[in-house]
Amino acid sequence: VYTLGVDIGSTASKCIILEDGKNIVAKAIIDVGAGTSGPSRAIKEVLENANLKREDIKYIAATGYGRNSLEEADFQMSELSCHAKGAYFLFPNVRTIIDIGGQDSKALKIDDNGMLENFVMNDKCAAGTGRFLDVIAKVLEVTLDDLEKLDEKSTKDVTISSTCTVFAESEVISQLAKGTKIEDIVKGIHTSIASRVGSLAKRVGLRDDVIMTGGVALNKGMVRALENNIGFKIHTSEYCQLNGALGAALFAYQKYMHKTK
Amino acid sequence: VYTLGVDIGSTASKCIILEDGKNIVAKAIIDVGAGTSGPSRAIKEVLENANLKREDIKYIAATGYGRNSLEEADFQMSELSCHAKGAYFLFPNVRTIIDIGGQDSKALKIDDNGMLENFVMNDKCAAGTGRFLDVIAKVLEVTLDDLEKLDEKSTKDVTISSTCTVFAESEVISQLAKGTKIEDIVKGIHTSIASRVGSLAKRVGLRDDVIMTGGVALNKGMVRALENNIGFKIHTSEYCQLNGALGAALFAYQKYMHKTK
Ligand code: SF4
Repeated sequence: VYTLGVDIGSTASKCIILEDGKNIVAKAIIDVGAGTSGPSRAIKEVLENANLKREDIKYIAATGYGRNSLEEADFQMSELSCHAKGAYFLFPNVRTIIDIGGQDSKALKIDDNGMLENFVMNDKCAAGTGRFLDVIAKVLEVTLDDLEKLDEKSTKDVTISSTCTVFAESEVISQLAKGTKIEDIVKGIHTSIASRVGSLAKRVGLRDDVIMTGGVALNKGMVRALENNIGFKIHTSEYCQLNGALGAALFAYQKYMHKTK
Repeated sequence: VYTLGVDIGSTASKCIILEDGKNIVAKAIIDVGAGTSGPSRAIKEVLENANLKREDIKYIAATGYGRNSLEEADFQMSELSCHAKGAYFLFPNVRTIIDIGGQDSKALKIDDNGMLENFVMNDKCAAGTGRFLDVIAKVLEVTLDDLEKLDEKSTKDVTISSTCTVFAESEVISQLAKGTKIEDIVKGIHTSIASRVGSLAKRVGLRDDVIMTGGVALNKGMVRALENNIGFKIHTSEYCQLNGALGAALFAYQKYMHKTK
């Protein structure tokens, strides 16, 4: 039995195909999100990757910011539920999820049964979201993928004192003018985001295991900075970006099981 | 008796020369601020404009963000005191001052004797400061001076729902892509800043007369948007940008009077 989850974010579309609610058989990530052809292309690509046809899929569940505008979907599930579900599948001991997305960041508190107990969210201020990294990477003329390696090379602590993305951007420009090394600036930026997201996570209450999801979790420099800030070990998975889609695919399987009972 | 006030902001240096603590005899504005040659150039220029020499000036008082790094100054005064003093000189009935600067915004409460009673300030978030206008003008490919005329031409209300400068920038880009007219976007932006600055002013408590200072006060569209938001008439002066420098020059005159008593 195959089910498909699609997570339509503001900056990317992510898909997972699950077999029998247990095995991840294929994934796809397209770098454009809601309001584009991204979601449909992600579905097409994940089917190809799995060597399956649309008819082979029992249910398609959509989640994320753009979940309500996808015709292909059989039903919709809230992002928060999908994130909780996906993380619990990957890490059965999860109690806190920290998700840094392209345009928001959130912290979720999970109870001992894997259910969402509480959450806090920031989608009003670009600081503390992936957007902050986009802006800074652009000023530094590096890619998002470069950030991890640059952070590793840092030998000197640089403090970026502005929390505001716009003011931090100017601060980075003056640091560059002063001859500060890019790698030290990058580490300073990671520390700055960590402090914003760390406060968010503290507001929801931190408990082991702490899982970090969202594309930003692929950046080990960012994960390290956040670990230093919150004082907890942070677990990540190669599926961190696909956590919402995974949760949706799990809900789709649950729906199938319910129907066939 | 001539005294000179210099206000060293983050984005501009402003000078006023005052005769007998009563008449403004010259002014100068240089478009670069703290950490540049701007302050010295502004002093040189205001002296030329007044046809005076350094020796003709009894006291030079410096204020603003960069006030402590100017050797030419005889003494320093806090920005807030200078703003209160300058506004009281221009408008003896002032009770509230709203100042939108290049990188901060503040609201000052003035008591019946023209003394600063209380203030609130935002220098953490670029939204609600002149910086927001800079960012948006750049995206719209217009100058700051164009904003007033564009606002006047607006015929349709456009809501910019993001308060964050970074997210509003993206919103403006999608509005342009949708074919929304620049003038309507500009008006929407003015309304958005007005709502941020309006809340700041409400926190300090609004009372007539309300004076608006800072370079942004030259933009009548912005003044109108703020009047609509707070429900008070707003008074401005051609010296709105020079209010801090004026206050400093008045303090310099006060010092002179005190010494000669
Ligand atoms: S602090 Fe900066 S990034 Fe945050 S809302 Fe304000 S403008 Fe946006």
